Parts: sequence; C-alpha cells; structure tokens
Amino acid sequence: MDFFFYPQKVAVFGSFKKGAIAYEILQNIVEGGFEGKIIPVNPKGGRVEIAGRSFEIRERLEESVDTAIIAIPARLVPELIDEIGPLIKGAVVISAGFSEVGNEELERELVEKARKHGVRVIGPNCAGVFGVHGKFFGSFEVRVKPGGLALISQSGAFGGAALAMGNDEGIGFSAFVSYGNAADLNESDFLEYFADDKNTRAIALYIEGVRDGRRFLEALRYASSKKPVIVLKAGKSASGAKAAASHTGSLAGSYEIYRAAFKQARAIEVEEMEELFDAAKAFEMYEKAGKRVVVVTNSGGPGVLATDKLERLGLEIAKLGEKTVEELRSFLPPQCSVKNPVDLIADADYERYRRTIEVVCGDENVDSILVICVPPIFIPSEEIARAVVDADCNKPIVVNFMAGELVRRGVEVLEENGVKNFPTPERAARALRWLSLR
Amino acid sequence: MDFFFYPQKVAVFGSFKKGAIAYEILQNIVEGGFEGKIIPVNPKGGRVEIAGRSFEIRERLEESVDTAIIAIPARLVPELIDEIGPLIKGAVVISAGFSEVGNEELERELVEKARKHGVRVIGPNCAGVFGVHGKFFGSFEVRVKPGGLALISQSGAFGGAALAMGNDEGIGFSAFVSYGNAADLNESDFLEYFADDKNTRAIALYIEGVRDGRRFLEALRYASSKKPVIVLKAGKSASGAKAAASHTGSLAGSYEIYRAAFKQARAIEVEEMEELFDAAKAFEMYEKAGKRVVVVTNSGGPGVLATDKLERLGLEIAKLGEKTVEELRSFLPPQCSVKNPVDLIADADYERYRRTIEVVCGDENVDSILVICVPPIFIPSEEIARAVVDADCNKPIVVNFMAGELVRRGVEVLEENGVKNFPTPERAARALRWLSLR
Repeated sequence: MDFFFYPQKVAVFGSFKKGAIAYEILQNIVEGGFEGKIIPVNPKGGRVEIAGRSFEIRERLEESVDTAIIAIPARLVPELIDEIGPLIKGAVVISAGFSEVGNEELERELVEKARKHGVRVIGPNCAGVFGVHGKFFGSFEVRVKPGGLALISQSGAFGGAALAMGNDEGIGFSAFVSYGNAADLNESDFLEYFADDKNTRAIALYIEGVRDGRRFLEALRYASSKKPVIVLKAGKSASGAKAAASHTGSLAGSYEIYRAAFKQARAIEVEEMEELFDAAKAFEMYEKAGKRVVVVTNSGGPGVLATDKLERLGLEIAKLGEKTVEELRSFLPPQCSVKNPVDLIADADYERYRRTIEVVCGDENVDSILVICVPPIFIPSEEIARAVVDADCNKPIVVNFMAGELVRRGVEVLEENGVKNFPTPERAARALRWLSLR
Repeated sequence: MDFFFYPQKVAVFGSFKKGAIAYEILQNIVEGGFEGKIIPVNPKGGRVEIAGRSFEIRERLEESVDTAIIAIPARLVPELIDEIGPLIKGAVVISAGFSEVGNEELERELVEKARKHGVRVIGPNCAGVFGVHGKFFGSFEVRVKPGGLALISQSGAFGGAALAMGNDEGIGFSAFVSYGNAADLNESDFLEYFADDKNTRAIALYIEGVRDGRRFLEALRYASSKKPVIVLKAGKSASGAKAAASHTGSLAGSYEIYRAAFKQARAIEVEEMEELFDAAKAFEMYEKAGKRVVVVTNSGGPGVLATDKLERLGLEIAKLGEKTVEELRSFLPPQCSVKNPVDLIADADYERYRRTIEVVCGDENVDSILVICVPPIFIPSEEIARAVVDADCNKPIVVNFMAGELVRRGVEVLEENGVKNFPTPERAARALRWLSLR
C-alpha cells in the first residue's frame, strides 16, 4: 500500500472552486510540500491557482498515477473507477452517499469495478489519507508534524479532531487514514501495513466495530508484536453501541468480546480520547518501561499526587539503593528529601536536576523516571528543561512541567528535543503505565 | 476574615529589591489594581518604583492597616508581630523556616505574639492570599481572572500551579489562599469563611492532611451545605501518604477515613488535578444538574464516546419524548439522527444547533445537555458557539468544542459569554457527573 502513503504521482478528481472538497485537498497536498506530480482532473478543464502555483485541470486522466483521490458525486464514482482503473493502483473515495445512506448497491458496484482492475480502495465516505514522511497530505484535514504515530480512524470527524488536538499535544505523525465505509480496505489491512512501515513507531486505532473479528484479531496480534498498538473502542456501553450502530452502521457487538481480543493481542486499550493522546506521546518516545518508577520533583504536593497515581495504577515506587541515597545526600541541600519522591525543593536549578536524574538513573532498582517541575524560582523553566535533555540517562524519562503559561518556554525546549510534556502529574503517571504494559 | 480578602489598607514587609519576594508581592498588588492604601515597610527605608508609581518605603509601620504581608527572615517574625500587633488585624506570613524545618519553638512564639494582640495569622511558610473581587493579589503567584472559585491549598506550589493552569482552563477565581504550616488559621477556617463569601460559587480544596478531624468534618459539612466543595486529597496511597508526611509533615492518616468524611459531608471528591479543574469549571457555571443527559453533536464518533462515558459514570442517556422526536424531525434533514445522541451531521449550522438545543431543553425527560462540536464545514466554529449562547434554555449545558486550533475562536466566543469549554467528550461527560452529585 505504499502507493497510498508514499505516492510519486497523484490525481485529484472533483471541483476546484475555492471551498470545494477537491480544492481543499489539492491545496493541502500542494501546501504540504508534496514533491511528486499532482494532476487535478475535472471534465470542465480550466486552471486552478494554489500557493503561487498554477495547475492545468485535465479533462480526463491520461497517464498512470499511484493514487486517485476522488471527490465527485457518489453515483458517478463506479463509472470513473472503471474508466481510470488501468491507470491507477489505489483510489481514495472521499465522496459520501453509499452504504452509509442505504446505497449498498452503489457501493458493491464501486468495489466490483475496482476489483476488475486490481485497484485498492480506501473509503468511500472517508476523510482521506496522510503519508506524512512522504509529504503527502491527501485529505482536507489539518496538516500535522512528522513523527512516529500512525492514526487509523473509522470516524473521519474523530480523526480530524484528533489530528488537530495531536498538534496541540505535540504529537508527531507518520500517517493518517480515515477508512469510512471500508468497502475494500479496512482496519486490519492498515494495522498490518503500519506494523511494517519503517516510519511508524506506534499505531493508534479508533474503532466503533469491525466486520471480520477473526481477521481483526490476527492483524491486531501481528501489529502488536511489532510495535505498540493503542486502541480506543467507541460503543462500549449499551447506549454507546446503539449510537455507533446508527453512526457507522457498526454492529458494535459485545464490548466484552472486544476487550478480550485487545487483551489477547496485547494491544494497549485506552478508555478515552485524552488517554489516546497520552499513550501516543509515551510510545512515540519509548518502546516500553518497567514498573519501578522514581519521582524527581521541585515541589512536594505534585510529587505526592504522582506517587498516589502511580501506586493506584499498579506501578511501583522504586526503593532507591543505599549508594544512590548516599550520593544524592552528598550534593543535595539538607532540606531536600532523598527518598522517593526525591524533592529537590523550590530553588532547584539545572545542576541539581541534571545530577539527580543521572544518579537515580544509575540505580538498578529504577526502571524509569518521572520528572516534575513547577515554575522554578529565580531561574526560567527552560533551564530545567535543558537539565532533562542533557542528563546522561538511558532509561525512559516522562516529564510533567506544570503551570501552563509559566512553563511554556520550558515545554518548548523539551519539545524541540523530542521530549513530550504531560500537563499534570497524574497524566505523566498514566503515560508510564502504558509503557509498562508492553 | 474580610480583612484578608477584601482589605482597605495593607502593609508589605521585606526587601524591595527587584526579584525579592516582598518586591514581587508588592508588584502583584500594584499591577493587580488594588484601590486601597499600600505601605511597603523596611527598616532601611528608601523608595521603590513599580508600574510607573513610586512608593516611599517606611522604616516602620506607624498607622493601622487591615493586613500585613510579611516576607522577612523567620527569626525576626515573632518580634515584628509583637511590634505591629496593635496596628493590624491579620498577618500573612510568607517566610519559611518554622515548624516545617523543625523550628516548632519559633512558630509557637509567633502564634503567642499574634494571640496577645488578637491578630489572626495565615502561614507561616505560605504563598499568600488573593481576594480577586477586592482586586487584592497578596501573593507572588500569577494573577487570575475574577470568577466564582475559591481555591484553598495546603501546598503553595500546587496552588500556584493550579492558578496558572486555571487561567489556561478559563476558570475564574474569587479567592486563593495558601495556608502553609497552618499555625493559626487552617483549612476549616477558610471553608467556613468561603461558605458565606458572596463572590464564591464553589470552593476547591487541596489537602494532604488535617490536624483536627472533627472540626474539619464540621466545617466541610457546613460549607457543602452552602455551595459545592471540591476536594483533592493527596497522600491517598501508602507511598503517597509517606511522601506527604515528609512534605507538609501531615499525618495523612488512613485515606478510607478521609473518604468517608468527604462522603458524609457531601463534598465532591476528585481523584486528580485535571478533575479538580473540570469540576471547578462545571460548578462555576451551575449549582447542580439531574442525571438524564441528552447529547447533541455534529459528529457521530465523539457522540458515541460521550455516551459511553456518561453511562459508565452512572448518568442516564435521556429517552426523548415522542413530541420532541417529532419536532426535531420536522426541521432536521433526514440524514440526522433524532435519537439520543442527536446527530446534526457535519454541515450543521447556527440555526440547526440553536433550535435543537431549545427543543431538547423543553423535554421533561431531559435534565441537562451535552453539546459537542467538531470543526463545522462551510462555517466558522464561532457560529455554533453563538447558537449555544443564544439558545433559550434554562437547563445546564456543558460544551465540548473539540480540535484545538480549529475551534479556538468558537471557544473564545463561549468563554466571553461565560460558557466554559471541555476539550474532550469524556471530560464534558465527567463535568456532568460532578453536577449530578449535588
């Protein structure tokens, strides 16, 4: 499926009036810096200007491309696929008006024409695809930063919102696919594909329901064996399942069966949207972590909150070795607490944080480190951020710089260096839990 | 205690060199727009310039003030209190170096001098007080917007971080107090005070432990009978309790006892920091809400997630009456779902949202409304925000505009009109749960 996520040549079908869906997609592709050939197609021809470039709109497609993105009226889609089938490998059908509104026949026809030509289909009724490392933004959704997360979403709107919120959360993406009605390719195909995609470090999956449970379990198991797969299942409650049925037509089925499947496949199931982001952030940074955590903080209260949450989530508050305690004692002011949580107190600076992180990191009783920073007094938060970045430590470090505006520069310095921030002590603790489940 | 939160005249004791604590506090008071008299005091005298104003630093206090804020070396505090006792009603002692580092004797002396003159004390070892509606920012912590939340925090650093994060979350504050070592006034005194404070709609309390359990239970019960009291207890786990003991010297005690007390007093216990914000936002808007919720959304997926969470939290998915369903059917496009969740689909505009909210609001089976909006197509999100604001509805409406940057203007319009946004469907659902507990 590289032709979907790393295409060399693409064609876009639809209206290229400003505001039309095909126009928006073309604009996203152009502005996203796609380096291959882009061919807009509309029977009316003409030209379209985007980002200082001018494109001739072809009246029909006359050369081979990897992928066609199709945003034309539903009833015309099967015919178009039949016409361009010999020239394309994949079709992303954005158009709605198929099985989701009862037009099963039209959808069957679409698939039939595609199969005839060996064309693979994403959609119909979908939001499109991003292949972020190929600079291919084949969707009207907001563009995202390159990174390690592949997001597979049954709901286009959920996917779009998650991309935008992911930008805010500092998540980097390798790919995005909204697969809509899944007439041809479905969640299992994408799980298998991203399991082997070299730019994907973790996969996030939003599903309401799947049609082929056996295949799904196999794909999920395969993907989970390669990299972390984070699953958010919607339609868990009785009312939610009913709502899902009327939304994507999914037979959500018994949640207990899904839950068992997730567990069996060793997928990371999250309960809500925010947890999806937190898990994604954790797994973009680290493959996994053990259970024994040490908390390093410049403020007692947040250290206690982190400790509470870690213990509640089944993690362990690491018991620091004697040598570690002695070493910490040797350079920390006497008011500091050298038990776990290690409290460096309010005037902690770069050196105190860096050395402490390095010392606890060297302790064989420690698997990972949760670093908390409330706005330091006397120095800017970015100095503590630099201490975290500079610390010579080969174990997972999860960071909670808290207090919004007041630590913004610190959080920026962290992000510039690939360290993602968790806004509360408890969310940082939860991130470590996801890591411990691998 | 009005002299702490609505003072007319205040004195600040300490160093007024830039960056010194007394300077920072003075600056906050001046920049916060305090309209009463402000007297900086330091034996060395001189002048201090702040925000274009010049203050004479008095060598000693020679006139009556409501409150003295004291940030001088700990050992000099009891003596100062004895000297100025006849001139002040309250003392906020920022200085550290008392019982928290083993100097119990010095703290006893402080209290003794204060009692001798009938002076009430906040602290020592605290971050100070805000009386936001009196424009009195007697702390070095970041200033906040006026609103209905009074924040009482045992931990100064937690309090400071919560204020800054509260600003980001759109919370408005009536007051803030960090009570440090609680040598004189403690959490129970503040609970009682804010229970009767006219500007306070809800109280948030961060505690690690209390000394007088019986008094606390009474104060909590009294305050809860007047308005919602949100409690975040740190030191819930065994390790957390140990950490709390070394932080504030709190005997955190068995969490089970606290939990029973919270329940008995009908306080709203939250488990983590983010929930504290969400509950505060909910209670700043509404006193309470019933359990039967209707979800109104322009996207199926997020509607399903909200439904799942509501049901999981013990709320009910309201069954809409026949008349409601008929009325919705009369003006909604046929693709819309008129069951609960009501799905207005992607092209929903101002009119569709407003009318739907009004119709479901009129249903006697509905107690409250959860409105979800993913970035609408064709129109800006602020139009949907206006629909929420304009809707003629007298039941609680909790809102989830999702997708960060893409709905920012919509969220701003909501906030300008006193409607607080919850960033995910699940957090909005949780807000409704807190409201249902009153």
